[in-house]
Amino acid sequence: MSDWQGIIPAFKEFLPVTEGTPMLTLKEGNTPLLRAPRLSEQLGVELYFKFEGMNPTGSFKDRGMVMAVAKAVEEGAQAIMCASTGNTSAAAAAYAARCGIKCIVLIPEGKIALGKLAQALIYGAKVISIEGNFDEALKIVRNICAEHPVTLVNSVNPYRIEGQKTAAFEVCQQLGDAPDYLAIPVGNAGNITAYWKGFVEWQKAGKVDKRPKMIGFEAEGAAAIVYDRVIEKPETVATAIRIGNPASWEGAVNAAKESGGLIDYVTDEEILAAYRLLASQEGIFCEPASAASLAGVIKKKKEGLLPEQARIVCVLTGHGLKDPDNAIATVAGGPIMVPATEEAVLREVF
Amino acid sequence: MSDWQGIIPAFKEFLPVTEGTPMLTLKEGNTPLLRAPRLSEQLGVELYFKFEGMNPTGSFKDRGMVMAVAKAVEEGAQAIMCASTGNTSAAAAAYAARCGIKCIVLIPEGKIALGKLAQALIYGAKVISIEGNFDEALKIVRNICAEHPVTLVNSVNPYRIEGQKTAAFEVCQQLGDAPDYLAIPVGNAGNITAYWKGFVEWQKAGKVDKRPKMIGFEAEGAAAIVYDRVIEKPETVATAIRIGNPASWEGAVNAAKESGGLIDYVTDEEILAAYRLLASQEGIFCEPASAASLAGVIKKKKEGLLPEQARIVCVLTGHGLKDPDNAIATVAGGPIMVPATEEAVLREVF
Repeated sequence: MSDWQGIIPAFKEFLPVTEGTPMLTLKEGNTPLLRAPRLSEQLGVELYFKFEGMNPTGSFKDRGMVMAVAKAVEEGAQAIMCASTGNTSAAAAAYAARCGIKCIVLIPEGKIALGKLAQALIYGAKVISIEGNFDEALKIVRNICAEHPVTLVNSVNPYRIEGQKTAAFEVCQQLGDAPDYLAIPVGNAGNITAYWKGFVEWQKAGKVDKRPKMIGFEAEGAAAIVYDRVIEKPETVATAIRIGNPASWEGAVNAAKESGGLIDYVTDEEILAAYRLLASQEGIFCEPASAASLAGVIKKKKEGLLPEQARIVCVLTGHGLKDPDNAIATVAGGPIMVPATEEAVLREVF
Repeated sequence: MSDWQGIIPAFKEFLPVTEGTPMLTLKEGNTPLLRAPRLSEQLGVELYFKFEGMNPTGSFKDRGMVMAVAKAVEEGAQAIMCASTGNTSAAAAAYAARCGIKCIVLIPEGKIALGKLAQALIYGAKVISIEGNFDEALKIVRNICAEHPVTLVNSVNPYRIEGQKTAAFEVCQQLGDAPDYLAIPVGNAGNITAYWKGFVEWQKAGKVDKRPKMIGFEAEGAAAIVYDRVIEKPETVATAIRIGNPASWEGAVNAAKESGGLIDYVTDEEILAAYRLLASQEGIFCEPASAASLAGVIKKKKEGLLPEQARIVCVLTGHGLKDPDNAIATVAGGPIMVPATEEAVLREVF
């Protein structure tokens, strides 16, 4: 085994690392690339999953956050701040705790699932709920960070994409080459932008000969890029990609265009079907939003747009344990009740 | 980076692997050993955490289960079965899904948190609740497995400990030697037994010169080994070690004795304090039960039983995302509510 020390030392030539950058890490990155033997056969492609839920806080956000927080510390920040109700706040709070700086998380009022905030709270972030919506929260964060020694770590922080692009490097290393297609969920669109940047840089450095076609999938109820208009009230079961006005819109469009790929949408039904398939056929439990990549591959294969035996990597952005209630809701019925006898149990088993 | 292929290929000379054993994997093992700079300084020891929550289903159980399921498949089993309400059922269900065999989970009636079953259900296990207690569930499982082509994967399955011992190998590899002390939560006591077996074998193979002192910690309300009597109704916030009659009782006593270590208990208060410290000081979010190892180290250091600068590895058995409700309950208060103005937010921040 290798004693992996995180993405900053592993990929420092490709990252904005100076002599003053702390080698901050919770051992993010080096996530598994899992071959999917059963789904590959069913779909007639060579399918892999890059399981980013195996990062320390349970999502791909750790890659970008470790870079953003390391640079904040290098630049002397005593605190970081973000507006977020989900995975971003968990990652920000964890890395701030790790290096002993303050983390402030602003959330909009209303129906916030406390479970989604469990991580930010336990990592010791100060979580402030404002009587306003997400846009107002972000605006306040931007203003405070502009005027005080507090670093903004929302996706507008450019170091986030730098850290996130390292996942593309790993895919190439693990596969020995770039795949034919990289399928990825699209919400705020920072991740597809980051992967594409990573693949381009890795090829330019002569590490691989080719780059994949980037195929990104939004949820139907939040398909701003597909419909080419801002969605005022995005709705989807895949909360992590429930975004109606992606911050990296242009990056996503560009990645699809330059690579010869596409951006399409998948329905909630297709997302949940893929989510169940991943767990029950391959033993991989991811967030619903993550399953948009597999749902998209299934859709495009049916449409005849993916060649037989194409080598496809699907990105799974977060761990299913981030949202156990969804799993319960999805698996109708729950446990079967029987008397405490061998016979009664056997009737259910065989 | 290395493309890690799981514990079976990595440690096959030390495992019951034959030519017929499938190389089953969800990329379990190779979990981070995290240095704890801040807690090391506060405690005056050299402290590391072996974060087993970074296994695919979120707990150390994956190591033993991959071995048990691989052997079940090798021996022709069409199904596996266990009595469990927690981490064991999640691991069993995931590996069964991965290799396409059936998984049946028996649970006792009563106050089972559905969240704990989310994983078993989504991985496609058949979950059966019997009108009886845990012992009755286990008895039915044993009977069915004795009479039908179904493999029992509860902790009495000897392959479980074989797989679990690989964590000790990794600790030695990552540290370059065995630590002075290995601190570990003790519930059913299979894990301390497995680690000790691993350290002994690794030394016998000439890979390291020494073995650590094993220091195991039960929860006060479930401290069967410490009190040397079965606890009829074990009670502790650390549900993963809420066990009143450990299956590997003798193994735990033996590990402590042979290594010159000890088994002690820690209170729920000490466990929760350590749980919060881990998250807020080091950015590591684990299950409450996991924090028993750190709680024990803090207790023993206070008692003067651990030398200054001793090199100590604390095992963290599961990810905090397994039990987000506990995190919420632990962090009193939740978010602060303020008006949507910069001034109101600033008053909370500075």
